[in-house]
Amino acid sequence: MSSSHMNSSSSSSNSNNNSTMDLLTLENPVFCCYLFWATVLVVKMLLMSLLTALQRFRYKVFPNEEDLFFKNIEVQFDDPRVERVRRAHRNDMENILPYFIMALIYVCTNPNPMIACNLFRLAAIARIVHTLVYAVVAVPQPSRILAFATMLIITFYMAAVVALRTLRFI
Amino acid sequence: MSSSHMNSSSSSSNSNNNSTMDLLTLENPVFCCYLFWATVLVVKMLLMSLLTALQRFRYKVFPNEEDLFFKNIEVQFDDPRVERVRRAHRNDMENILPYFIMALIYVCTNPNPMIACNLFRLAAIARIVHTLVYAVVAVPQPSRILAFATMLIITFYMAAVVALRTLRFI
Amino acid sequence: MSSSHMNSSSSSSNSNNNSTMDLLTLENPVFCCYLFWATVLVVKMLLMSLLTALQRFRYKVFPNEEDLFFKNIEVQFDDPRVERVRRAHRNDMENILPYFIMALIYVCTNPNPMIACNLFRLAAIARIVHTLVYAVVAVPQPSRILAFATMLIITFYMAAVVALRTLRFI
Repeated sequence: MSSSHMNSSSSSSNSNNNSTMDLLTLENPVFCCYLFWATVLVVKMLLMSLLTALQRFRYKVFPNEEDLFFKNIEVQFDDPRVERVRRAHRNDMENILPYFIMALIYVCTNPNPMIACNLFRLAAIARIVHTLVYAVVAVPQPSRILAFATMLIITFYMAAVVALRTLRFI
Repeated sequence: MSSSHMNSSSSSSNSNNNSTMDLLTLENPVFCCYLFWATVLVVKMLLMSLLTALQRFRYKVFPNEEDLFFKNIEVQFDDPRVERVRRAHRNDMENILPYFIMALIYVCTNPNPMIACNLFRLAAIARIVHTLVYAVVAVPQPSRILAFATMLIITFYMAAVVALRTLRFI
Repeated sequence: MSSSHMNSSSSSSNSNNNSTMDLLTLENPVFCCYLFWATVLVVKMLLMSLLTALQRFRYKVFPNEEDLFFKNIEVQFDDPRVERVRRAHRNDMENILPYFIMALIYVCTNPNPMIACNLFRLAAIARIVHTLVYAVVAVPQPSRILAFATMLIITFYMAAVVALRTLRFI
């Protein structure tokens, strides 16, 4: 009886701890949602590498001596069609890579599942739109600024949530 | 009686496991400290994007046709005031992004809390100083080298700690 | 008796949960293997910074006014020997940083230990080879393309595994 009581009390304390302990597991739907959309963004970023390579072969613009796969061409930089893709790729690195860490940290603070999942979806879709209007087809502004600002604001929001939760550990 | 004994032994083994199991939760002060200072650095990095945009609008230097928000200007690269901010931003990516992963990994090895928290604080402050003396006001060397070296050495130290702990899993 | 039964059932449910709960701890050999090889790649990336600095001092090519440590030299860009190292470093950022997140996410899906550990080893060695044939000695192609493709394909494989596991959280 007493041991049964201990048992139930220990299991209730476990269920209290669950809110913090199980956050980074597949049992947490918010974490799974993060995993899925982070994977989408990783794949999108890697495709930028391949898009750059595609542009380099299409316009025969290579930056290294050992890359001159065609005869009668020279090392060449600053081709505008290649550089546009590289700028888009750099912008990805500047924004998506810090977002990966920020969103992972945000999951650790046990956010509202509805808000968190929709932020992950919106951020990922915004960056896919950003790539389309920047690197694939040059769409007039403010399309790119809006796509850029969407993830930026989401990341700032997550940062504010986390900073408020962890401020006393400064 | 025997079941009560099992209970206590299982709870004691739990408390032993706690050192490894609860590391990536808000119950671990070292992790919370990491969360706070990583958030500070994420915000700092995103502000570099906005600082670049500010410089572009101030000096009317835009790299894309669709960004020409003013009349009678052309696409332009290599403005020294814009490029300085972009070099600082690239340096951030080269150093802070690997640091995020390295410090997270370091937390997983259950480091001494006093050492770990102070390293997080020092690294974050060093990079804020780096940005101030590089991108905001160009301060003479060796101020930037010192700020740069501080995070670099901290990251190498964390790498050494982790590598020694995980060497047998090579 | 009944409490003992509860006990054993709770411990068996714990051992079932272990597959997801203990993944990001030092008790998981796959995670330890990730930690070790991620640490190797972090160190490799940071050495690129030092290699760039070495090239800058060797050939006295500095991009900032305040970096002119020698007399009678001017700010200079586009030195091919410095730019080669910087392109290699940028390629590291484009590929290794998303890989860090992807591999960490992959560990969370509790992959086959044999496959996962060998992928971590292969990916890290491939990127070390990439650096050697790109930034240290310019080896003729396709050595660099093969080293580049190795990590790229590994990351895509991990992405496919994770996406299939988390697809219902879209």
